[in-house]
Amino acid sequence: MEKEMVGPIAFVYPIPIVLIGSMVAGKANFAEIGDCALAGINPALVVVSINENHYTTFGIREHRCFSLNFPTTQRLKAVDYCGNHSGKEVDKSTLFEIEPGQNPLCPLIAEFPVNLECEVIHDHQIEHRHLYVAKVTQTHIAKNLISREKGKIHFPDLRMLDPILYGLDNAYYTVGEKIGTSGA
Amino acid sequence: MEKEMVGPIAFVYPIPIVLIGSMVAGKANFAEIGDCALAGINPALVVVSINENHYTTFGIREHRCFSLNFPTTQRLKAVDYCGNHSGKEVDKSTLFEIEPGQNPLCPLIAEFPVNLECEVIHDHQIEHRHLYVAKVTQTHIAKNLISREKGKIHFPDLRMLDPILYGLDNAYYTVGEKIGTSGA
Repeated sequence: MEKEMVGPIAFVYPIPIVLIGSMVAGKANFAEIGDCALAGINPALVVVSINENHYTTFGIREHRCFSLNFPTTQRLKAVDYCGNHSGKEVDKSTLFEIEPGQNPLCPLIAEFPVNLECEVIHDHQIEHRHLYVAKVTQTHIAKNLISREKGKIHFPDLRMLDPILYGLDNAYYTVGEKIGTSGA
Repeated sequence: MEKEMVGPIAFVYPIPIVLIGSMVAGKANFAEIGDCALAGINPALVVVSINENHYTTFGIREHRCFSLNFPTTQRLKAVDYCGNHSGKEVDKSTLFEIEPGQNPLCPLIAEFPVNLECEVIHDHQIEHRHLYVAKVTQTHIAKNLISREKGKIHFPDLRMLDPILYGLDNAYYTVGEKIGTSGA
């Protein structure tokens, strides 16, 4: 396959779209990010990267915690709005139905099927970016999406979760077909 | 939406499937990871999380660099094999056609459409996990997937890249439909 070297581009894909939430000046604020990954199963870790000037970042710096809220494609318009408008200019606390987490400083978007409450354990700054490594302290999943067998949780099919993907072509996508099982 | 609290689970999705490569004992080795994210555009940063006992990790610790290789769904079987067999037991250098990167310590999988060469700039250990923050030093993209307008690169549609997604239901998925453009 003939390749071209295009210089240093962080061309990671597909990008999972998440609304990261924090409390800023007493109100919930949400930023659309794709710079988010699972970082460990046990302990349950996540890592996010966020611009130091984002309004949400002020809340994370103050409270050392944040929420991750996983939208469905049905809410693409509101999610994209959160990515293109700063909390410095608009009040995003009214866009969604919000519930406090077990930690009331982690605002959760009630209508999204999955919400994580996270506690920052490591903050690494590189130029204008903060990389936050965080422990998940609580996970909320829509009741109709999970089942249990002998006390063990069965996680839902990705298509049922209906997440929003993003590509560096600046477009949003859905999940497609199931094509296999790991280790099968 | 009725929710259930299921305890601390790093339920991030969808997970992008990547083969991370390093040189171990003079040979290329590749591990399947999903713990990988874009961490910044400028500078071009990525973050990965990997178990300290993974064979690939030995190479990263020695050379402070790694490659990220983005497969297509066509190679799911070989990719899943890399996730379920350790380089301690099998020689993965023969599974793919391999080319050295500009940095010869970054082994690239020639038949995958996108490869990143990365240089570790920060290593944060949490129990048995290493979180590596890395600068992308070079990006290789299949020539037929990119175009340019006034010197600016147009990135390909995610469906043309045909990546493998993963969910915590232990299943693999494709990308589905394009549903929008950011800021449109």
